[in-house]
Amino acid sequence: MEFTINNNYFSKAITEVSHVVSSKATLPILTGIKMEAKPDCIILTGSNSDILIQRTIPQIIDGVQVLEVHSIGSIVVSAIYLREIIKKLPRDIKLTLSDNHYITIQSEDIMTRLNGIRAEEYPHLPMINQTNRIRIYSDKLIDAIKKTVFAVSRSETKPVLTGVNLSFKQDELICMATNSHRFALCKLGIESNVTGSFTVPSAALQEVTKLFHANSMMNIIVSEDYMLFKSDNLTLYSRLIKGHYPDMTALITQSSKTNITVDTKQLLQGIDRACLFASERKNNTVQLTINHSQLKISSKSTEVGKIEETQKIGQLSGEQQVNVTLDGSYVIDALKEMKEDEVSIRFNGSMRPVILEPVGNTSQIHLISPVRTH
Amino acid sequence: MEFTINNNYFSKAITEVSHVVSSKATLPILTGIKMEAKPDCIILTGSNSDILIQRTIPQIIDGVQVLEVHSIGSIVVSAIYLREIIKKLPRDIKLTLSDNHYITIQSEDIMTRLNGIRAEEYPHLPMINQTNRIRIYSDKLIDAIKKTVFAVSRSETKPVLTGVNLSFKQDELICMATNSHRFALCKLGIESNVTGSFTVPSAALQEVTKLFHANSMMNIIVSEDYMLFKSDNLTLYSRLIKGHYPDMTALITQSSKTNITVDTKQLLQGIDRACLFASERKNNTVQLTINHSQLKISSKSTEVGKIEETQKIGQLSGEQQVNVTLDGSYVIDALKEMKEDEVSIRFNGSMRPVILEPVGNTSQIHLISPVRTH
Repeated sequence: MEFTINNNYFSKAITEVSHVVSSKATLPILTGIKMEAKPDCIILTGSNSDILIQRTIPQIIDGVQVLEVHSIGSIVVSAIYLREIIKKLPRDIKLTLSDNHYITIQSEDIMTRLNGIRAEEYPHLPMINQTNRIRIYSDKLIDAIKKTVFAVSRSETKPVLTGVNLSFKQDELICMATNSHRFALCKLGIESNVTGSFTVPSAALQEVTKLFHANSMMNIIVSEDYMLFKSDNLTLYSRLIKGHYPDMTALITQSSKTNITVDTKQLLQGIDRACLFASERKNNTVQLTINHSQLKISSKSTEVGKIEETQKIGQLSGEQQVNVTLDGSYVIDALKEMKEDEVSIRFNGSMRPVILEPVGNTSQIHLISPVRTH
Repeated sequence: MEFTINNNYFSKAITEVSHVVSSKATLPILTGIKMEAKPDCIILTGSNSDILIQRTIPQIIDGVQVLEVHSIGSIVVSAIYLREIIKKLPRDIKLTLSDNHYITIQSEDIMTRLNGIRAEEYPHLPMINQTNRIRIYSDKLIDAIKKTVFAVSRSETKPVLTGVNLSFKQDELICMATNSHRFALCKLGIESNVTGSFTVPSAALQEVTKLFHANSMMNIIVSEDYMLFKSDNLTLYSRLIKGHYPDMTALITQSSKTNITVDTKQLLQGIDRACLFASERKNNTVQLTINHSQLKISSKSTEVGKIEETQKIGQLSGEQQVNVTLDGSYVIDALKEMKEDEVSIRFNGSMRPVILEPVGNTSQIHLISPVRTH
């Protein structure tokens, strides 16, 4: 194996596949990156037990030759050392595999040698029938992930809740996440020959939002155990989480005792301020009180002090007196992912979940259960 | 106490005095900031056992009225809560002390209440005779601190080595720091009616570099136990470290067996690359080898690999064969603080300290002892 490569592209690709590689991996080979030189490209692979990322570097990118393969071959080398050394090298580099167990990296007068492991020892890719495909616009998918993934459970008690549920219909994808106390849902239009419901680990989806470029078409491929996210030169394999995903949609009632609209950004800032005094307890308990045309946001800490502010309500319908105690951080998470100027909030008394929806956008909905304060 | 204040200036001043306030301070009152409203200014004080910062906010800054004091008074409130809430408030604020034990902060429709402690309980300022003054240009002082402070000892075994030694003569200030393995020295011109040698904790000097504005005159005031750094609206009190500071200057020999000059930036980058392979051991051992007109920088890790590069030597005098093993991180620390294009390196064999000096600047010198590799 021997190739000459543009350092910038090489460094970027190594960093991308390194995302999922842990230097503490139990299997030493998984602390490495698999590097394969094919006649017309380089393929880099990094993985952990749940996620595998494969990045191809072609010979030509944007009309510029970035790679020249002199001879083919493959090897696994330490991800962290490869990444750091390539970053610190000043120019295009020549990489040569010697004796099948180390690589030499030459850049100007700098010669680096990195020990390697034979590529044959690297875990095999899962065999996947790639007929079940969904074509999707990357921006839309990334947006739907961001609007739901924060709501997953951090506890391993119910593993299925640590993932985001992706439910495919012929023309629609519904993404859902919940930790039993809050629930986020986002819908988007797709063209699919797949139907079914799959739960994907949140870490894999977080990677999808970081790795895939905006403004391009990508494919989702589904098998029994894996979901693949695929663009021209990049594939992310994610293991699926098995188990029945609970149906939370029944909680989204259209009727409500009180319905208000408020300014999204102002509400976010108000809750953020109130959280300051709420943060010493386990839950960031913030009180929302509606009294006719005003929304009062308040929180209190016996030791430190208290905060209270009033905000204008845009539209108000139904009962004009509401008092509900919420985990302020849940409200902040939901509001942060709303681009719309106004948010509608539906209340059904102080013991029932509050429903937040951006005004003028029915594709996104958030449900937050009240905190029991007694 | 009641005053109205521009939120930006107030927030900035609170953040500055908060630097030295720890939320984990043993004395609860030291987790707070003392706030005093005088007829024509506000004075904020924050401190820990070694450092005290006092910041004055006058009524008018840059021709703009930023403060209006309605009534005088004083209180101590939690630094962290005060800082965070003021940051998050949108506009100018009105602050009122009530019942001598809490303050009310009003900003638009946002009302915050913070509990406080009586200002009388806050530790008194040390009484200092302010006649022993040194006038100094802030840029020069900050520069001299940055060029030495990194070299202090992290170990409390010899407390005096955890500080930077400031030695005042009538027309010169010499700053020195060492951890017994490396030594940094920087000289600057001053006008002083003080002579003597004082050791200041590195943390206090780090604060000086952050707090004091560039491009202004400031004063240093020295007493038996304290050093004060003072500009118009800001005073930092630092406790001094007692004990005899060792004289390292004898180690700076002018004679040398080999003397070379190399490009500062290239050397820094080369050592940085070599450190990558050296970092698994306790010392970042990097080898420098001179062989006639070339400098070889190398390091090796049995497990991972090795790196080797050659750099051009500008001027070479003396013995043409040198081999010395240094802690690469010490070399990096010294080179980072050199603005000059070229650095001169003096060698006295493989067992004696290496001396680094920027070419064309005799005010700064660094000494690094070799690592014993056997």
